[in-house]
Amino acid sequence: MKKITAISYSSSANLGSGFDTLALAHDAFHDKITLRMQENSGPLEINMFHDGIQTDPLKNTASYAFMKMAEDLDIKGKFSISVEKGVPEGLGLGSSGASAAGSVVAANRLLDLGLSLDKLTHYAMLGEGASSGSPHADNVAASIFGGVVFVKSTNPMKVLSLNSSSANGVMLIIPKIKIHGKTKLARSMVPEMVHMDNVISNSRLMSMLVLGLTDGDRSLLREGMNDNIVETSRLSLFPFYPEVKDICLQENAIGASISGAGPSIILLMDRETNVENIKLRVKPLMKERGIDADFVQCSIARGVTMYEE
Amino acid sequence: MKKITAISYSSSANLGSGFDTLALAHDAFHDKITLRMQENSGPLEINMFHDGIQTDPLKNTASYAFMKMAEDLDIKGKFSISVEKGVPEGLGLGSSGASAAGSVVAANRLLDLGLSLDKLTHYAMLGEGASSGSPHADNVAASIFGGVVFVKSTNPMKVLSLNSSSANGVMLIIPKIKIHGKTKLARSMVPEMVHMDNVISNSRLMSMLVLGLTDGDRSLLREGMNDNIVETSRLSLFPFYPEVKDICLQENAIGASISGAGPSIILLMDRETNVENIKLRVKPLMKERGIDADFVQCSIARGVTMYEE
Repeated sequence: MKKITAISYSSSANLGSGFDTLALAHDAFHDKITLRMQENSGPLEINMFHDGIQTDPLKNTASYAFMKMAEDLDIKGKFSISVEKGVPEGLGLGSSGASAAGSVVAANRLLDLGLSLDKLTHYAMLGEGASSGSPHADNVAASIFGGVVFVKSTNPMKVLSLNSSSANGVMLIIPKIKIHGKTKLARSMVPEMVHMDNVISNSRLMSMLVLGLTDGDRSLLREGMNDNIVETSRLSLFPFYPEVKDICLQENAIGASISGAGPSIILLMDRETNVENIKLRVKPLMKERGIDADFVQCSIARGVTMYEE
Repeated sequence: MKKITAISYSSSANLGSGFDTLALAHDAFHDKITLRMQENSGPLEINMFHDGIQTDPLKNTASYAFMKMAEDLDIKGKFSISVEKGVPEGLGLGSSGASAAGSVVAANRLLDLGLSLDKLTHYAMLGEGASSGSPHADNVAASIFGGVVFVKSTNPMKVLSLNSSSANGVMLIIPKIKIHGKTKLARSMVPEMVHMDNVISNSRLMSMLVLGLTDGDRSLLREGMNDNIVETSRLSLFPFYPEVKDICLQENAIGASISGAGPSIILLMDRETNVENIKLRVKPLMKERGIDADFVQCSIARGVTMYEE
């Protein structure tokens, strides 16, 4: 019986102005995805285990992504996928994406398929569609490629790896709240039409962000992590955000934005950032709103890594 | 009598996806702007000469920009401004911007004002407003700073000089057609509201363009010089453009876009570009439409330069 285990990291999409385009992988959390080939012929059969409990393979992004890949490539046989969930769900940390990413990268290795990372991102995105309703590639690309990714297009899938020159630290502020159906809800809040003035300003912000990510310019990063379309439209989901962001910037975080569809917040930090003050000031502010928050310091993560047992 | 003469270059705004943000100065054409101080006190009086002919100072961007600056800074006295026009007008080559840029930079030197280039861009933009109806900063910033500029914001004015790493050549394809009230007309054709899908794709394109401009990546430049909002909406002004662009890309231009509000087309080129084939194929195509076109090879220009006589 062949078997591969993959470690797939959490990620933060958008980073302010980069809606559906930019994402950063971080080593705050990871999923452990084990793919076993039990039979190498016969009709496709997938058994899915989530933290040891068997679940519907159509409802888990790891198995759903692998199924889409198997259908497309005419892969036969009996497989089991087992996910040890490390990335918390429903907090905007790329949890469903991490599982899908790990599964397709493991399959590529196990079955010696030789697929490009772009192609793997394509299949992982289809898997993501199972959970979010609308497939998007940013989180899965970050988990697969590692570092900071820029989704150039999704059809065909083309991902650019940004050589993030800055050795910035990352902090996640994770409010412990669950919003039912959050990802779909958050998507539905994005406006369908945008005023041209905001189009120009968003294009400017994202360009500054991308420049800042590649050359490490602090002020470009800080400005580029702002957004006036998507975050603004979703503000009712995380009303604490403007105040928390203000504190982070006052305490010299490089920049701060909502992580994916929220409610978590991602900060980029360096030596000038007063991390302790951020914790001291943000914690009581969240408490007043009846929200407990975790603060997780971490680093930019590499892509999916694998080992054979 | 004190006197300064400034050389101010032509420019191409937008470069595809960078509407109202990106512009490139080129040495294809230049204006020569001479500012004389005839009296250094008394009420402000400006005499404006365009190619030797006295004209209304309210209707020329050089004098209008200087007037706005003088009002704001309480500059007194009697001045004359004389523009020898080198940049052809109405062709999307930053003609009105070049005059405004030269005039304020000359005034800064003549009166020893010590203003920043951002501040000078602000006044030059106000001058531009006299001709286009809606002030925009891209062309004036390119003429003032030289090279490739990125307008981060106009209020307050903040311009980023992009260190264009590539020593790319530039070619302008200039159709000899005049469209009455073109700049205003072109502005009125830009949609007020844009679909979110196009917002995402434009932000992506502009980010790729900015990355390409700074690191010289050919494929990023080529993609980033595309646009699906502004150029598309103005296509009836230059119906020949899609076909001409196709030829340019087939002949390995790095990228091609409408220059500013058109009708000129700007190409970025390198050694792989077959310039002669572009001319051979585009000329007859324009002829069929009854349009004569000039082809001007040039380089990226420096900012306004001055000499005292």
